[in-house]
Amino acid sequence: MSDLDKILTHIDADLDNALDRLFQTVRMKSISTDPAYAAETRACAEWHSKDLETIGFVSSVRETPGHPIVLGHNHDAEGTKVLFYGHYDVQPADPLELWDGDAFEPVLVTLPDGSKEIRARGASDDKGQMMTFIEACRAWKFVTGKLPIPITVLLEGEEESGGANLPGFLDAAKEELRADVAMICDTNMWDKETPAITTSLRGLCAEEIFIHGSDRDLHSGFYGSAAANPNHILARIIADLRDLDGRITLPGFYDGVPELPQSLKDGWAKLDFSESVFLGEVGLSVPAGESGRSVLEQTWSRPTCEVNGMTGGYTGDGFKTVIPAVASAKISFRLVFDQDPHKIRAAFRAFVKSRVPSDCRVEFTEFGSGRAVAFEVTAPTFQKTQAALSDEWGKQAAFVGGGGSIPVTTMIKEKLGLDVVMAGFGLSDDRIHSPNEKYSLTSFHKGMRSWARVLAAL
Amino acid sequence: MSDLDKILTHIDADLDNALDRLFQTVRMKSISTDPAYAAETRACAEWHSKDLETIGFVSSVRETPGHPIVLGHNHDAEGTKVLFYGHYDVQPADPLELWDGDAFEPVLVTLPDGSKEIRARGASDDKGQMMTFIEACRAWKFVTGKLPIPITVLLEGEEESGGANLPGFLDAAKEELRADVAMICDTNMWDKETPAITTSLRGLCAEEIFIHGSDRDLHSGFYGSAAANPNHILARIIADLRDLDGRITLPGFYDGVPELPQSLKDGWAKLDFSESVFLGEVGLSVPAGESGRSVLEQTWSRPTCEVNGMTGGYTGDGFKTVIPAVASAKISFRLVFDQDPHKIRAAFRAFVKSRVPSDCRVEFTEFGSGRAVAFEVTAPTFQKTQAALSDEWGKQAAFVGGGGSIPVTTMIKEKLGLDVVMAGFGLSDDRIHSPNEKYSLTSFHKGMRSWARVLAAL
Repeated sequence: MSDLDKILTHIDADLDNALDRLFQTVRMKSISTDPAYAAETRACAEWHSKDLETIGFVSSVRETPGHPIVLGHNHDAEGTKVLFYGHYDVQPADPLELWDGDAFEPVLVTLPDGSKEIRARGASDDKGQMMTFIEACRAWKFVTGKLPIPITVLLEGEEESGGANLPGFLDAAKEELRADVAMICDTNMWDKETPAITTSLRGLCAEEIFIHGSDRDLHSGFYGSAAANPNHILARIIADLRDLDGRITLPGFYDGVPELPQSLKDGWAKLDFSESVFLGEVGLSVPAGESGRSVLEQTWSRPTCEVNGMTGGYTGDGFKTVIPAVASAKISFRLVFDQDPHKIRAAFRAFVKSRVPSDCRVEFTEFGSGRAVAFEVTAPTFQKTQAALSDEWGKQAAFVGGGGSIPVTTMIKEKLGLDVVMAGFGLSDDRIHSPNEKYSLTSFHKGMRSWARVLAAL
Repeated sequence: MSDLDKILTHIDADLDNALDRLFQTVRMKSISTDPAYAAETRACAEWHSKDLETIGFVSSVRETPGHPIVLGHNHDAEGTKVLFYGHYDVQPADPLELWDGDAFEPVLVTLPDGSKEIRARGASDDKGQMMTFIEACRAWKFVTGKLPIPITVLLEGEEESGGANLPGFLDAAKEELRADVAMICDTNMWDKETPAITTSLRGLCAEEIFIHGSDRDLHSGFYGSAAANPNHILARIIADLRDLDGRITLPGFYDGVPELPQSLKDGWAKLDFSESVFLGEVGLSVPAGESGRSVLEQTWSRPTCEVNGMTGGYTGDGFKTVIPAVASAKISFRLVFDQDPHKIRAAFRAFVKSRVPSDCRVEFTEFGSGRAVAFEVTAPTFQKTQAALSDEWGKQAAFVGGGGSIPVTTMIKEKLGLDVVMAGFGLSDDRIHSPNEKYSLTSFHKGMRSWARVLAAL
């Protein structure tokens, strides 16, 4: 029996213990965006650092001006040096009333078809995903006494809240983070039977705007029409951001966005992808974006503008005829190819300002910037990872584009000069960022086995 | 010394006690729109009914399917029979953090210029205002042993929450409510030295809409562009409701809205009204409504459309890149002349539906309807009231238009056939419906004296 076979057998046998460890971290409310959970977020970091030590990592909790970073090294072996990145923080769980149970009390649910899923905030994003890698390391250590290659694990605590302190940390710890390749487990499979490596990601430019009108809420009976209503101003701005064909109207927005080569479009067209199934899974049926472009093209290679939140005036029960003093919106752009997040932010702010009347004012708050990123799949680590995943799942692993943004990927490429292999086992129906987030038990189990094989292949 | 002089002297002497009674009712959180305050709203009704009994009214708390109505009769005298209407419910006080103190703990604040104001939710709207009338009755009763004319007092508990149960009550109690004229104290002075009688009011059509998209909140990285975003749909609807000249674009919206006769426009132009002062008081300077129309014309004689509240997606601290499953808005129209609220509601719903994609859906909730109303100022009660107010304030009382909607006025005219004399002592800076609502002590004091004179004149 080869080492790898023994390790895979151990992973199978140890599944309940691995689940127990995952449940321990999931129970910790590491909601990074909400200051009320700062202590619990730190406790979660400490738990992970101690956990890495049990696998032979030299690990510590590193301070930042925000939530801490966990950094562990296990360099007992020679070979391709891997920097693994994960994030131990999670999204808020609200609205809590839409969860079937406590968002932070993980449960293993058996579905009517007999399959099982882990249900909790963070079950997938990213605690469940990152633990597949850490558990693979644990199995290697248990069976062979050491890891097969040198590995550094970096776990961030601010991925869901802008990640303001990671760039400084990467700069400061550049020497300590030196590696041959980076790996991230925070992406999805192609479908529940087909593994995938994400080779391109969209960038992000996120911004909150506050439109201020009168110095207090006004009675709309007395001031209606005469007084500027920030809700109207905001609605006009949001509506103006898009033309009737779904194109974003910001001047210069599409600079650096090429038309895709026909060969790539043809490749995507051959993928087993159904727009009606993709939308049908979430109760929709009509693609809403740029007319004349497929859903895959829209979500993988085209930039977007989404209003993620907006509010103004009285939003409680009943009715209150006010003209609000302020209205606000959280707006994010997903960027592709060579779009420059800083230019787009500047264009957006100018666009907004030009639509705010002279007696009103606007405030802007920045929430993260990142360029899009893409890797050459012919590099050996991509090929070896593809082969290892294909072995585990019995189906050729797909190289896919990704619609989301993982700003750290760009950052690792730019600051550390590393390619990033993004292999993850999430599914599109994992409800990450939503109530009843889940991670398939198969994703968790075969995810661990997949990483064990990847480590062997490298 | 005439009876009237004795009564006015008594009002002056009893001011502290009158204030104490006002404070008692203001302390009760009769927030009709929020079911959490149902018991306190009822307690407030019971307090007012008992208070009326101390002035010789035969009074009781009448049940409705919602909050109760207080009805008291004092018909010891002969003469012009008055139905006085007030409302004992108040608006919610949020945002509470913008109040200088407890919204429901009234305080008498002395301003730098030496003037005093009563600060609390309901200090003006409508507890302070309606108590000026009730205190005038009390003074008449105290000094002369009875009221000079027969009076019925009706106090509603749902004016701030749609008033759904008043029409049925007026129908059912029609005989009991028979009178010669109705009076309401829920309007403003022209300025702080010039009393006013409001002779026209705008109507109201209020509606809440919910735009539903996907069946859960989605991750904008995966679904952005492809999935319908209810925030965008709602913003488009709101923006489309108005053209760039500020005109409402609903088909048929201006049916029944005549151009004003030049004589009336000329009369308004002669009033001592400064648009820059009016807007400057609330921190604004640019009239926002229909271009080419004065602020007085906009707020007195033109219909409006205001978004009083809107919300969708993540609106907490930080950032969450969701595409929300639902977005909603509370939208109200102020109506003038012969605009039909039911036709406008139908036109609005059709307008909204035509802008909702086929895979999304919209829900509507109605929040009140009322036509606009106007009275002939040549009627004797208007003339006598004008003379009484002019005597008290030493300045000719103005007949003015009103921008707000008091649906009960239309209802009293239509269901009971009565003219309604709307005389109130509010000021435009009373911050009703806003934090730090106040009522000038002068308004309260001279308001009581004014009604004492009106009762004498009738």
